[in-house]
Amino acid sequence: MKEIDRLLKGEIAVANLGSAIFVDSLRNQGKRVIAVEWSPPCRGDERLFGMLESLRREEVVVEGRPTRLDELISRANAKALETLNKAHPFLVGIGKAVDDIPGMADDLVLHAGPPIGWERMCGPMRGAIIGALIYEGRAKDQTEAERLAASGKIRFEPCHHHAAVGPMAGVVSPSMPVWIIENRHTGNRAFATLNEGLGKVLRFGAFGQEVIERLRWMERTLAPVLGQAIEIHGEVDLRVMIAQALQMGDEGHNRNRAGTSLLIRELAPAIAMASASNEDKSDVLKFMNSNDHFFLNLTMPAAKSCVDAIAGLPGCSIVSTMARNGTDFGIRISGLGDRWFTAPAPKVKGLYFTGFSEADANPDLGDSTVCETYGIGGFAMAAAPAIVQFVGGAPSDATRYTLAMYDITVGESKNYRIPVLGFRGTPTGIDLIQVVEKSLVPVVNTGIAHKQPGIGQVGAGLVEPPLECFEEAFTALYESLKRA
Amino acid sequence: MKEIDRLLKGEIAVANLGSAIFVDSLRNQGKRVIAVEWSPPCRGDERLFGMLESLRREEVVVEGRPTRLDELISRANAKALETLNKAHPFLVGIGKAVDDIPGMADDLVLHAGPPIGWERMCGPMRGAIIGALIYEGRAKDQTEAERLAASGKIRFEPCHHHAAVGPMAGVVSPSMPVWIIENRHTGNRAFATLNEGLGKVLRFGAFGQEVIERLRWMERTLAPVLGQAIEIHGEVDLRVMIAQALQMGDEGHNRNRAGTSLLIRELAPAIAMASASNEDKSDVLKFMNSNDHFFLNLTMPAAKSCVDAIAGLPGCSIVSTMARNGTDFGIRISGLGDRWFTAPAPKVKGLYFTGFSEADANPDLGDSTVCETYGIGGFAMAAAPAIVQFVGGAPSDATRYTLAMYDITVGESKNYRIPVLGFRGTPTGIDLIQVVEKSLVPVVNTGIAHKQPGIGQVGAGLVEPPLECFEEAFTALYESLKRA
Repeated sequence: MKEIDRLLKGEIAVANLGSAIFVDSLRNQGKRVIAVEWSPPCRGDERLFGMLESLRREEVVVEGRPTRLDELISRANAKALETLNKAHPFLVGIGKAVDDIPGMADDLVLHAGPPIGWERMCGPMRGAIIGALIYEGRAKDQTEAERLAASGKIRFEPCHHHAAVGPMAGVVSPSMPVWIIENRHTGNRAFATLNEGLGKVLRFGAFGQEVIERLRWMERTLAPVLGQAIEIHGEVDLRVMIAQALQMGDEGHNRNRAGTSLLIRELAPAIAMASASNEDKSDVLKFMNSNDHFFLNLTMPAAKSCVDAIAGLPGCSIVSTMARNGTDFGIRISGLGDRWFTAPAPKVKGLYFTGFSEADANPDLGDSTVCETYGIGGFAMAAAPAIVQFVGGAPSDATRYTLAMYDITVGESKNYRIPVLGFRGTPTGIDLIQVVEKSLVPVVNTGIAHKQPGIGQVGAGLVEPPLECFEEAFTALYESLKRA
Repeated sequence: MKEIDRLLKGEIAVANLGSAIFVDSLRNQGKRVIAVEWSPPCRGDERLFGMLESLRREEVVVEGRPTRLDELISRANAKALETLNKAHPFLVGIGKAVDDIPGMADDLVLHAGPPIGWERMCGPMRGAIIGALIYEGRAKDQTEAERLAASGKIRFEPCHHHAAVGPMAGVVSPSMPVWIIENRHTGNRAFATLNEGLGKVLRFGAFGQEVIERLRWMERTLAPVLGQAIEIHGEVDLRVMIAQALQMGDEGHNRNRAGTSLLIRELAPAIAMASASNEDKSDVLKFMNSNDHFFLNLTMPAAKSCVDAIAGLPGCSIVSTMARNGTDFGIRISGLGDRWFTAPAPKVKGLYFTGFSEADANPDLGDSTVCETYGIGGFAMAAAPAIVQFVGGAPSDATRYTLAMYDITVGESKNYRIPVLGFRGTPTGIDLIQVVEKSLVPVVNTGIAHKQPGIGQVGAGLVEPPLECFEEAFTALYESLKRA
């Protein structure tokens, strides 16, 4: 009996790979079907797949010796992972944007995400810039501020170009106080403004009187008291604090209750010693206690100080920046230096505050994806099952998201460990090549801003970064390596 | 063919119920064996099983009507569970033991666990009493204190008899400051001393100069500042705070980092307003920040104020007290009022600090089992996977312990929910009858004291309460119900 006849003698069972369209029809015919989850590499795109194959086969000459491209990439990625793991962010003080942020100037306003001009900016970013110009005394109201912003007399640049990051609109203007973070491993610094709280706040595009007054109080009272407290306390080891928060139900992006609590208990004894009045010190402590996201504006520059340390490593395929300006989603790749790859900012799927819906939502916004770039936030959601009350889904989803991210990262954190996963390190170092091969984008959780300026936060949820910008970056990386 | 022949015609597979002793030998003979985990009810004890059957069949006359015993018990247990769920503990202030604890007197020292005299007390409890008598100025050194303690001039009574609880030795002497907790649902109060910190501390039986000086500082500085802060802040809702802590990796007994953090951030703004010097306020905040167990001494009296509300409910089979004096483990049952059932205190299995081993360990000690009695602590370990670093085991064990406790509890907490279990309420209301039927004792995690007075903590771990005292209580409950 021929082999094929023997095989076909019994009942035929079908193993279906990938697309499920045949499964139901076969099952309806009474056939046994095993459905295997599978999708073709690079979503079946031959051009991308060709480049992927080429990266795995071809050699280039490095320092006079033929070297396989994939070895070159692996070596660079291993080095980058080591740099991320050794990165050691400390809070060293509080400064003023114009004095401390490199390249900051009186006519410059920083914003979240990739570069963008006033004309293309989304509502909440415009709202935040209006608020910042009023706060700076450059405009007396919305109309004046809009006119000034459009006049060309104010320059706009990404926070990311100035060692800074900002949640949501991410607007930093010259007089704002900023946290100063130092990565002790590499010596570089990063900056972020202090978190204003919830509801109607500048970062979500609100710019009413209460917003401006709060910013002035932060400059006059909050920053000086905290600055003094840091001097009295000494620098604060943020790597240890973030690691502890991840053992206390935070994931380091949208759940910050533990981090905020740890920061308060650490600084409170020093705040008590500050020279301010009891009322001011009490107000500072109340302000921090009233805002569970207070710690976010420390996690973000901490992460920034770490990912900046892997920018520009030749051959490295790790994502060194992910950021959104509410119009575009942009990424940068370590091996490709300062070049941005952008695609339209996607919608966020999530839970909306009472009275709001997806129709009100601005597309994805903010530099807070620096958390995921660093291997926390969405990547550490298994550590924070309670976050689903804020961003939607079930606690088991939180674990699923983290586990999926091990498929697109080069390694695991040695610092940030997840108790429920047996203290496994968080997935760290997003590998552009694996993202493109598996068509699996990084998971990001985020706040949602109203699309109109002046309103504020309307919800929180999860977002899928656009695959297009990763594929474009992949092509660029391939071309740059072939030239190498 | 006879049925039996037909059955025996094929290969014989064995389903083995319970004891595994046959499994290996059958497997060695090449037989297929399915091992089913099973143990006989009441560990096969016919007398206990007879009483269990009788409870489920027999009737008594209640208010002129015949009522099945198990219905009577179910109704009482349902009422008790409701009382536990509605119980609402608040921190209302700080007082002084002799002024505020009901029945406290100048010649009285309270201790953890069931009643015990000086002669039978374990080393760390003697050490704590020595320290308390020196602290009170009743003795100048160890020798004098031991003589006084043995003289009969000092009375010793359980904390539990005075609406109080204490971790480990649980020693409360007249001058000590105490937290005042009020259960808003039933109006009763509960008391505990303030937590001294880690290492050489009175509750673990240390009584050196540093211990006494710390206790004096707590009386002179810590308690007045915190007392003032509570007045300024207003009462603190401990049910909300414990619930939050359980979403932040605490289980409410041996992991208190979140609870301590939440307490500090809540009280810090009021501490800043207190009339003390900046130095004193800073020292108070430092002291709390340096001790992750600071919140334990609030969780315990909170739990006490709740479980006291279910003491003495006729027919109720729920455990209302579990406590250990380091010599005996004792329980009380709601339906049996004040009667203690005791058995020798067991050894703790756990992790030892460097330089110590099980040979140094005192048997199980302390009132902190009030946490498990209330449905948190060991029962909520699934919420606190990181605790295994302190008490031993793997994170998956933590979940397993919690799941097992649903088998011996009458219901679930409506207040304390575990994110990783899909926000399921913690197992609440330990049912004596199910404990005895299933021979499954409550899981308890705990600190370990050195068995000699004067040394202190040597580790932490898990302990299995002795089944004997549950079986003895079960017999008593059966007899009391038959008489009803």
